[in-house]
Amino acid sequence: MQPQSHNPSIPQLPDPAPGLNLVKASVRSQSAYTLDAPRADRKLNQNESPYDFPDDLKRQVLERMALMPWQRYPDFAPQSLLADLARHADWVPEGILVGNGSNELIQASLAVALDAGDRVVAPTPTFSLYRLLTAVSGGFYIPVPLGGGFEYDVDAIITAARCDHAKVVVLNSPNNPTGSALPEGAVARVLAATDALVICDEAYQDFGGPSALGLLKESSRVVVLRTFSKAMGMAGLRFGYALAHPTVAREIAKAKLPYNVNSFTLAAASVALANRGRLAERTRQIVDERERLLGRLRTIHGIRVYPSAANFVLIRCTARPAREIFQRLHAEYGILVRDVSSGAGLAECLRISVGTAEDTEAVVAALQATLNQ
Amino acid sequence: MQPQSHNPSIPQLPDPAPGLNLVKASVRSQSAYTLDAPRADRKLNQNESPYDFPDDLKRQVLERMALMPWQRYPDFAPQSLLADLARHADWVPEGILVGNGSNELIQASLAVALDAGDRVVAPTPTFSLYRLLTAVSGGFYIPVPLGGGFEYDVDAIITAARCDHAKVVVLNSPNNPTGSALPEGAVARVLAATDALVICDEAYQDFGGPSALGLLKESSRVVVLRTFSKAMGMAGLRFGYALAHPTVAREIAKAKLPYNVNSFTLAAASVALANRGRLAERTRQIVDERERLLGRLRTIHGIRVYPSAANFVLIRCTARPAREIFQRLHAEYGILVRDVSSGAGLAECLRISVGTAEDTEAVVAALQATLNQ
Repeated sequence: MQPQSHNPSIPQLPDPAPGLNLVKASVRSQSAYTLDAPRADRKLNQNESPYDFPDDLKRQVLERMALMPWQRYPDFAPQSLLADLARHADWVPEGILVGNGSNELIQASLAVALDAGDRVVAPTPTFSLYRLLTAVSGGFYIPVPLGGGFEYDVDAIITAARCDHAKVVVLNSPNNPTGSALPEGAVARVLAATDALVICDEAYQDFGGPSALGLLKESSRVVVLRTFSKAMGMAGLRFGYALAHPTVAREIAKAKLPYNVNSFTLAAASVALANRGRLAERTRQIVDERERLLGRLRTIHGIRVYPSAANFVLIRCTARPAREIFQRLHAEYGILVRDVSSGAGLAECLRISVGTAEDTEAVVAALQATLNQ
Repeated sequence: MQPQSHNPSIPQLPDPAPGLNLVKASVRSQSAYTLDAPRADRKLNQNESPYDFPDDLKRQVLERMALMPWQRYPDFAPQSLLADLARHADWVPEGILVGNGSNELIQASLAVALDAGDRVVAPTPTFSLYRLLTAVSGGFYIPVPLGGGFEYDVDAIITAARCDHAKVVVLNSPNNPTGSALPEGAVARVLAATDALVICDEAYQDFGGPSALGLLKESSRVVVLRTFSKAMGMAGLRFGYALAHPTVAREIAKAKLPYNVNSFTLAAASVALANRGRLAERTRQIVDERERLLGRLRTIHGIRVYPSAANFVLIRCTARPAREIFQRLHAEYGILVRDVSSGAGLAECLRISVGTAEDTEAVVAALQATLNQ
C-alpha cells in the first residue's frame, strides 16, 4: 500500500519498515490464509452444508438471545454445554474446551506445545492453517506426502515423526482437501510408535472414517478436535471443541482466550446438540449425495476422481487446465468450486463441496460441457 | 483429576504425564486466567455496562440474523463493517482487523512479533493476559511498576524498554485494574525513545484519557486495540478491532484465525456502529456516574480511593482485609465486586465497576456498613 497523497480524505501513511521489521521472519515468510470468493448461485467452495440451520431451531436460538443481557460476558466455562458435549462424546467435561471454531483450538494446542524449533509432522497436502500456525508458534513444519491416490501413508508419518523427534503430529481425517480418511487403528499406531502429541482434527469425521475419540481413555497424548461448522450446519456461528486429558486441557486453555465463544453461539450450540438426531439425518443425506456425486464424476472423461470420506470431493483435471475449468464453471454456470491447484501436490486439482441432488446434476453437467469443448 | 474407577459411568483416565510433559515449561509455569463469579443481584465485577444493548437495536440484529444462512461461513473480510470502522476512526480499512474481542488481537500482535526470549515491557499491575500471552509466545515479560498512586511512570517504561531492548511495549490506558490513564503525549514519547512495537490497548478509552489513534499516521510501530465490550455494551457478543499500518496489519492477520468473528457479531457490530450516538450518550452517563462514585467513596473511612479514567474504580482497604469486605458485600448485600487483592502490588485492593446510580448508593452504603463493624 502506497501513501495516497493525491487524495486528501485518505490518511497519509508512515514508512512501513519500522513496524514490519518488528514482525518475526518466520511469520513474514508465510503466506496469509486468504479466500477470494465471488458470488455464485451454487456455492460449493467452502464445504458448507447445503442445508441451512432449521427454521424452528433458529427461532429457538433467537428467542433465547432476545432475553439474554448482551452487555454481560458469556459464562467463563459454559458448564451445561460442556456436560452435554461430554455425554455426547463419552468423555469428561473437564477434558473439553470450547472454541471459536475448532481453528482456535488447533492454534491453542500448537501454541502450548511448541518451543522454538520444535518439529510438527503432518501429511501433505492438508489444511494450510497447520503450517501457518506452526510458523507463528516458532515451530518447524515437516510435511509428509500422502500416496499417489492421496491415501494416508501411516508408516511414512511414523518414520518422519521418529527420525525428526516430532513434538506434535497433526492428522486431519478425513483430510482437507483430499478427502482421505486414516485407516482404522492408525492413530493408535502413531501414539504407540512415537512420543508426540497427536492432534486429530476431525472436522469432517461425521461424514466418514474412524474417530480417535476412543483413544482419549488410552493416552494423554491425543487431542481430538471437532466442529459444528460442517455436519451441524453452523459455519456462520463458529463453534468447535477440543477433547483431551483434563490435565492437558487445562494447559491448552492457557492459550485459549477467555470468553472466546459468545453468548449467541453458546445458545445455538446447545440447541443444535439437543436436536442432533435431526441434524444427523441431514448428514446421512449428504453422505448419500457424496456417493452419488463420486459415481457421476467417475463417468466423466478428462478428470481423475479421488475417493472421499468427507463432504467434498477432489478431482484432478487431466484434459484441460483446472484454472480454466474453475473459471468457466463460475462464469458460464454460476457454480463456485475451490481452485486448490496452486497447492503443493495439487496441480490441476479442484475441490467440490457436496451439495443437494440438484447441485450434483448441475456440476456434473457443467464439467461434462466444459471438458468436451 | 484422579481416575474415578469407583464410578463406571465416568471414564477411566490415562496417566496425564506423557501429555503434560509435551506442554512447554513456559506455559506450565503460568497460572491460567480464571474467574470464579457467583451469582449476585448487583454485578460489578467485570466492567460491563449497566445498560443492556437497546431493545430496538437487539430486534434489528435478530431480524438480520433470522434472514441469514447460518450454515455459510461469515465473509472472509467484512468490507462494509471495515469501511464503517475506518470512517469512525479516521483510518484506512486495510489497516483494520476485526477480532473475537480485542483479546484475540492482543494475542495475534504478540504472536507475530515475539521470537523466543524477546522482551515485552508493560506496567504492573495491569491486565494479566499480557503476561500469559507473552509466555505462550515464548517471550520474556518485564513488568515496570506504576507509581505509588498507580500513576503511569513513562520515564521508567522508556528506561526499561531501552535497557532491555524491548521488542514490544504494551500500554493499557486507562489501565485495568487501576484506572490510571497515560499522560497526554506519552505514547509518542515511547515511540520516539524506543524501537519497540507499541501496543496500545484502549479497551476503556471511551471513558477517559488520551487515545493513540492519531499516532497511526506517524508511525508503523503503533498498534491500537479497541473493543465493543465496554462502552458499546456488547461484552456477550465479543467484538474488538485493531488498527495498525496496513503492512503491519497484514502480518498480524496471519496469527488471527480466518472467520474469527461470527455472522451474528458482525451484524451486531454494524448495528451498534450505525447507532453510536445513542450508545455514546450512555458512555457519558457512565462517566458522570464514575465521578459521583469516586466522590462518594472518598467520603468513606478505611479505604483509599485511586483516580480512575475508566468505567471502574480501584480501592484499597486500609481498615479491614479486602477478602472480608469482598465476601460480606456479596453475602450480606448481594453485591459482587472484583477481588484483585492477590495480584502483585494490589494487596487489599478491590475493583468496583461503575453501574447505575442505584448501584453507587448500594455499594457505598454496603462499604460504610461493613467498614464500621
